Amino acid sequence: MPKISHKGQILPASAIRKLVPFADAAKQNGIKIYHLNIGQPDIETPVEAVNALRNANMKVVEYTNSAGNLSYRKKLCEYYSRHNIQLTPDEIIVTNGGSEALQFAFTVCLNPGDEVLIPEPYYTNYNSFAIQTETVIKTIPSHIENGFALPPIEDFEKAITPKTKAIMVCNPNNPTGYLYTKEELHILASLAKKYDLFLFADEVYREFCYDGRKHFSVMELEEITQNVILLDSVSKRYSACGARVGVFISKNKEVMAAAMRMAQARLCPPYFGQIFAEAAVDTPDSYFEKVAKEYDLRRRTLVEEVNKIEGCFCPMPTGAFYTMISLPVDDSDRFCLWLLQEFNFNGETVMLAPATGFYSSPEKGRKQARITYCLKVEDLKAACKCLAEALKIYPGRQI
Amino acid sequence: MPKISHKGQILPASAIRKLVPFADAAKQNGIKIYHLNIGQPDIETPVEAVNALRNANMKVVEYTNSAGNLSYRKKLCEYYSRHNIQLTPDEIIVTNGGSEALQFAFTVCLNPGDEVLIPEPYYTNYNSFAIQTETVIKTIPSHIENGFALPPIEDFEKAITPKTKAIMVCNPNNPTGYLYTKEELHILASLAKKYDLFLFADEVYREFCYDGRKHFSVMELEEITQNVILLDSVSKRYSACGARVGVFISKNKEVMAAAMRMAQARLCPPYFGQIFAEAAVDTPDSYFEKVAKEYDLRRRTLVEEVNKIEGCFCPMPTGAFYTMISLPVDDSDRFCLWLLQEFNFNGETVMLAPATGFYSSPEKGRKQARITYCLKVEDLKAACKCLAEALKIYPGRQI
Repeated sequence: MPKISHKGQILPASAIRKLVPFADAAKQNGIKIYHLNIGQPDIETPVEAVNALRNANMKVVEYTNSAGNLSYRKKLCEYYSRHNIQLTPDEIIVTNGGSEALQFAFTVCLNPGDEVLIPEPYYTNYNSFAIQTETVIKTIPSHIENGFALPPIEDFEKAITPKTKAIMVCNPNNPTGYLYTKEELHILASLAKKYDLFLFADEVYREFCYDGRKHFSVMELEEITQNVILLDSVSKRYSACGARVGVFISKNKEVMAAAMRMAQARLCPPYFGQIFAEAAVDTPDSYFEKVAKEYDLRRRTLVEEVNKIEGCFCPMPTGAFYTMISLPVDDSDRFCLWLLQEFNFNGETVMLAPATGFYSSPEKGRKQARITYCLKVEDLKAACKCLAEALKIYPGRQI
Repeated sequence: MPKISHKGQILPASAIRKLVPFADAAKQNGIKIYHLNIGQPDIETPVEAVNALRNANMKVVEYTNSAGNLSYRKKLCEYYSRHNIQLTPDEIIVTNGGSEALQFAFTVCLNPGDEVLIPEPYYTNYNSFAIQTETVIKTIPSHIENGFALPPIEDFEKAITPKTKAIMVCNPNNPTGYLYTKEELHILASLAKKYDLFLFADEVYREFCYDGRKHFSVMELEEITQNVILLDSVSKRYSACGARVGVFISKNKEVMAAAMRMAQARLCPPYFGQIFAEAAVDTPDSYFEKVAKEYDLRRRTLVEEVNKIEGCFCPMPTGAFYTMISLPVDDSDRFCLWLLQEFNFNGETVMLAPATGFYSSPEKGRKQARITYCLKVEDLKAACKCLAEALKIYPGRQI
């Protein structure tokens, strides 16, 4: 039997995935699980955009342009222009979700062995793209005490080696819920300029900013237009994670030409998803206002409820729909498993994502978990009640 | 300005793509172009499957299972069972088109430097996946004289080195239109077994076999079940290239576990495309019968018309909807460009794919072109008329 590749062997399975069979078993035992572990919004997808797909002429479901339909890319220019980002269609390649945009960035910008600096905790799946491209993620610690703000520039600078080729941020941040400020992004820009680095930014949560904050995009960093690559997606914006429509954006022509050759090799992004996504650009502001209001309420509810629990701490997130909380436990992996295997409160329990998977070393996440607020307010309250009750009796409780 | 990666620099742009701007320019000059260069069928997508998508409940377009919807994978088991391939849903991962299945195979099975043996001419895009994974495609020549039948086993055996890790075939073949026989596949199986190699098979043209021939799948090779990886797609089967729904199939659990970790990193295949593809499994036989009849007519027409042209030779393809023809020209790249730039016959011309891109060395394809028969019979006839007239006056004519 032929052996699989080294990459095949070391590709990571995320900590969340490992818990899924235990969640399934709990459900089979009749336990109701509140899912605070995944970023799958329960918000309805804009019906007008779905109807545009239903009503489209789809006689031959043919290949689209490898860069995505021109009509969609033109429409995207309108969308970005509303966000103070001026683009032309040839600065956009439509991808199979934001994930493929990440894969393009890692492949066309980084050589094997090259290093990418990322504030940690960070989105676990970046690891998989690093392994696939044999590149190295080097993390710069951010901290729960200040809500996971951008680490000091000196910490980035200390980590830079001749192998450093890029800085990457997720803004607003998954898993921390931190929205980087304009000032923080200019600091990263100065580093990118000084050391001639790419700046990759995953901005898929752009629409989710709270307390009147305005999102500032890396595309607005006029001092480093040739260094910036924007990775984006319709998944969260329109509650359409399954559409698999993302974008790879850059003003660097050499980068775009190389990404375009990758795009051609995989032929095209999805035909159906693009019809949907093109129509979704016209989603009325009222949709986002309603969604933002709902998430804001959920955010406040969650933070308030978690902070009521003795030994827990939840910073107030400023963006996205995640937050990292600290827990009075010995080991978040063990605790999250125990919640599914051993615990229930009136037939209910809660599923969290252990933070161990979001750090470069699992040790750093032993006392934290990522929670999402994709659930309705009453469910969030019930979930927090479960968590509070669980922490009263969890055998590995530790302050 | 940061430098792009080495891979980014060497990723190939295909010969066909290079011609596109010239085709666009010809169109702008009012020239009608018959596209014999691309495998985009003009056949209508089954309306029942499209309607299933139109009528689906799509309230929240959420992530599907990373392996694809279970309901779809179960349905696929039915489909494959009708083709004498017995599968369980966990032996199937739904992918973003056949292209992603290829990417999975190259990544989870091959280490950098590993060699894959492929009969040439071969599908150009394999090169891109090889570059992305830093693997090496080694070609075994097949020949137009016998319709590009499988090269002798000795030729494969001579090419095997300690770095050889896989054999890959496209069956029926793009670009040659050759359908490998059961006997030929058993020969490849014996090699795979003897040298402990993976056997990758791209079988996306399974439905397109002619003259009563029956497709024999690598999944039917009982002697090497652990070596085989099947790459498949709905693109050609249902004339739905834009759906971007493929599959990665293997009975090797280690391979599937690694591919599943890749699948998780990119979250999921397309939601809309899967709804469509699940319904498409129930496409009535009458659809395929009609399509097969139409393609068979096109095939015979094309072969007859091309062989009427002095100096041209077109073998009779036994599968897919491509064939490689030999041309009485100095250089197929130059000829194909000339067709677009300098030639027209009553305001019409024809676009071909120069064969140079389908060989390991462009030299081998200088006197050949790939043509597809995705066009209606009358258009094929008109296209061949253009080709005949062009060859009468092409300055670089050479027998």
